[in-house]
Amino acid sequence: MDIVIALFDRLTALDAIGPYEVLSRIPGARVQFAGKSRGPIATDNRFLTLMVDTPLSEIERADLLLWPGGFGTRALERDEEVLDWTRRIHTTTTKTTSVCTGSLVLGAAGLLRGLEATTHWAVLPRLAEFGARPVSRRVVPQGKVVTSAGVSSGIDMALQLVAELVSEERAQAIQLALEYDPEPPFQAGSPQKAPAAVREKVREAIVQRLS
Amino acid sequence: MDIVIALFDRLTALDAIGPYEVLSRIPGARVQFAGKSRGPIATDNRFLTLMVDTPLSEIERADLLLWPGGFGTRALERDEEVLDWTRRIHTTTTKTTSVCTGSLVLGAAGLLRGLEATTHWAVLPRLAEFGARPVSRRVVPQGKVVTSAGVSSGIDMALQLVAELVSEERAQAIQLALEYDPEPPFQAGSPQKAPAAVREKVREAIVQRLS
Repeated sequence: MDIVIALFDRLTALDAIGPYEVLSRIPGARVQFAGKSRGPIATDNRFLTLMVDTPLSEIERADLLLWPGGFGTRALERDEEVLDWTRRIHTTTTKTTSVCTGSLVLGAAGLLRGLEATTHWAVLPRLAEFGARPVSRRVVPQGKVVTSAGVSSGIDMALQLVAELVSEERAQAIQLALEYDPEPPFQAGSPQKAPAAVREKVREAIVQRLS
Repeated sequence: MDIVIALFDRLTALDAIGPYEVLSRIPGARVQFAGKSRGPIATDNRFLTLMVDTPLSEIERADLLLWPGGFGTRALERDEEVLDWTRRIHTTTTKTTSVCTGSLVLGAAGLLRGLEATTHWAVLPRLAEFGARPVSRRVVPQGKVVTSAGVSSGIDMALQLVAELVSEERAQAIQLALEYDPEPPFQAGSPQKAPAAVREKVREAIVQRLS
């Protein structure tokens, strides 16, 4: 299975690495990290550097395409090279997927029109700009297009994808290998659960950086 | 706050990036990715390359030291350069922490003697080799030494660390920014919950690669 994960300047690292850790454990999986040019890219917090191993121009197909999110997607929404590439690869995929604001790239490429879709909760209404129907769920499968919510949701999406594309047993084995039995210390992981004061501060900080 | 995350050949990416995504959002945090030499290192699945920005020899202190795990820790248990460095940095930290088999490096450095500690469930008994008391809990704080279980547990540990070192409100804000409201698709994330057949297959695969 050929898995292509797109990387870009100001990516959120966990958006890519959560699903990577799951999907790369599919037997026979080959994972490529694709970007505008080969070499280092800086993630959103500017401390971590990830390596692009394959330029977009050298990738012609994928079984599974994943667009992670991060503040850098704002620029990509207007990047015709990236949007053309995304549309072209989408015609070859079994699954076209996103984490967090990666769905805004899929939207800008015109791939979410008429579909239900999700993204980071703080910018969820923006999906309507692309003709999608924003829904507040963690993972939103719509045929071959699967979008997921903010950052950490990519782990849940990837496990669902393994169950569908390979088997439930394989998904369980990967979940166990990653000891993914989460114990979040607070009930604060969604805007519905978090204290209102916390929610408004986080919303403001994120919306400001994505406008 | 100076945060040092150790990188090494055959690291499990999510062990490092889960906590990174949480800890790097502490206001004023500075994160360094440290390793034997500056430059690229290949993670365990061999697809992803992370960059070491600072050689161990250039790091003299840390407020928080984090050892991720992965199959590569087996070699580090006998690597005196790495163990000496770990002991030296430990004398300067507020918290010395590990994810997954990272605790075997702390153990080999002699830092777990007499303490409760945890690691990936499949190799948990090995902690006794280093004079630690293996416990099957997701996060095990013992004063300034905090160990966590397999791979994904580092996210839970990091949020607990933020609550203790900064504030509960900040930990909640980071949890919400990462939309960490997990919905694992299966009850298979711990050896107690997973089907026995899945558990034995995963145990065998992991133990084989760590012996």
